[in-house]
Amino acid sequence: MKKGILICVSGFSGAGKGTLMKALLEKYPNYALSISATTRSPRPGEIDKKDYFFKTKDEFEEMIKNDEFLEYAQYVDNYYGTPKSYVYEQLEKGKDVILEIEVQGVFKVKEKYPDTVLVFVTTPSIDEIRERLIKRGTETPEKIEKRMSQIAREVKSLYDYDYILVNENNKLDECVEKFNHIIESIHQKTDNSKDLINKLETEAEEITK
Amino acid sequence: MKKGILICVSGFSGAGKGTLMKALLEKYPNYALSISATTRSPRPGEIDKKDYFFKTKDEFEEMIKNDEFLEYAQYVDNYYGTPKSYVYEQLEKGKDVILEIEVQGVFKVKEKYPDTVLVFVTTPSIDEIRERLIKRGTETPEKIEKRMSQIAREVKSLYDYDYILVNENNKLDECVEKFNHIIESIHQKTDNSKDLINKLETEAEEITK
Repeated sequence: MKKGILICVSGFSGAGKGTLMKALLEKYPNYALSISATTRSPRPGEIDKKDYFFKTKDEFEEMIKNDEFLEYAQYVDNYYGTPKSYVYEQLEKGKDVILEIEVQGVFKVKEKYPDTVLVFVTTPSIDEIRERLIKRGTETPEKIEKRMSQIAREVKSLYDYDYILVNENNKLDECVEKFNHIIESIHQKTDNSKDLINKLETEAEEITK
Repeated sequence: MKKGILICVSGFSGAGKGTLMKALLEKYPNYALSISATTRSPRPGEIDKKDYFFKTKDEFEEMIKNDEFLEYAQYVDNYYGTPKSYVYEQLEKGKDVILEIEVQGVFKVKEKYPDTVLVFVTTPSIDEIRERLIKRGTETPEKIEKRMSQIAREVKSLYDYDYILVNENNKLDECVEKFNHIIESIHQKTDNSKDLINKLETEAEEITK
């Protein structure tokens, strides 16, 4: 059984990453989405072990102590993290696992699991995000500019990613296909074909003997 | 206009590379196949500048002198080579160019054009090739064993390739799709997204100013 691939996906806030992931998993249900652990309370309709692994603060801190997270962070009063166990089980089963995660978290994951593939989702231009937010009208100009500053900082990390995926307006299907191409192609990489190459090498030794 | 990608394809003799390339180009006519130059005489039906660039020995040697080849080699009394001009023109036009070439040639191309992507086509096992050849019955046992020794030598080069593409019996369509995934995914690589990242960086500077 060939092991699955771990893909970390980040993206500018407002680049449509959520919609993209939903469309990808609908079209390709063979991919598994990683499930986060959190200490925050479940919201109405959220299901334990499906939407999140809901944990008490003590449980979460015990897991931190036991190095059970690929990455974790604290926001306001709550912990959020990616438990290794779920991700590793899926990978062992041959499932490709997708992990939605912000820039900081990605590099922690890469450190713990170096074979991780890093994908960054962007719009063709940053200004497009500002325009979208202004049009939507749900945020104050100050909040929008704060978001834009965050995006401007994240641009510095783009070269650390393996792939840059452009999510163009009204081209969601195209973007889903591009994402699928990336994941599929990784399976053909020489680094992921070691078992096959070993087998061919053994056969070659028999021939030249 | 985004530049095209140069893909070098090698494969074990008998792994079905020819059939694969034909099927790929039928399904995806957007890819361009590189055209070789040769000093051998055209065979009936072969068209100059389509099947080959037919050259005299003097012309070919003049081209060698002027560094006009990505790679070239001499077999028996004839020269064979890949003229840079045709490949580069296609790449500039944004076309992805596929170059079918044996192991030795690949590394010469990689040296002259480091962005080349190297793909190796193999059967799931080498023994399968021997079985196929025996079944076909067109070659003497000595010739078959000579072919197998050649294959055994080529196995040593597999780790120099970027992708290993397995061409399974009766799964040609699947292999064509995998090949297409590889080429498509390369366009999303961060190294091939420099223009976009530059643009985003300029926008980010405006924001943080």
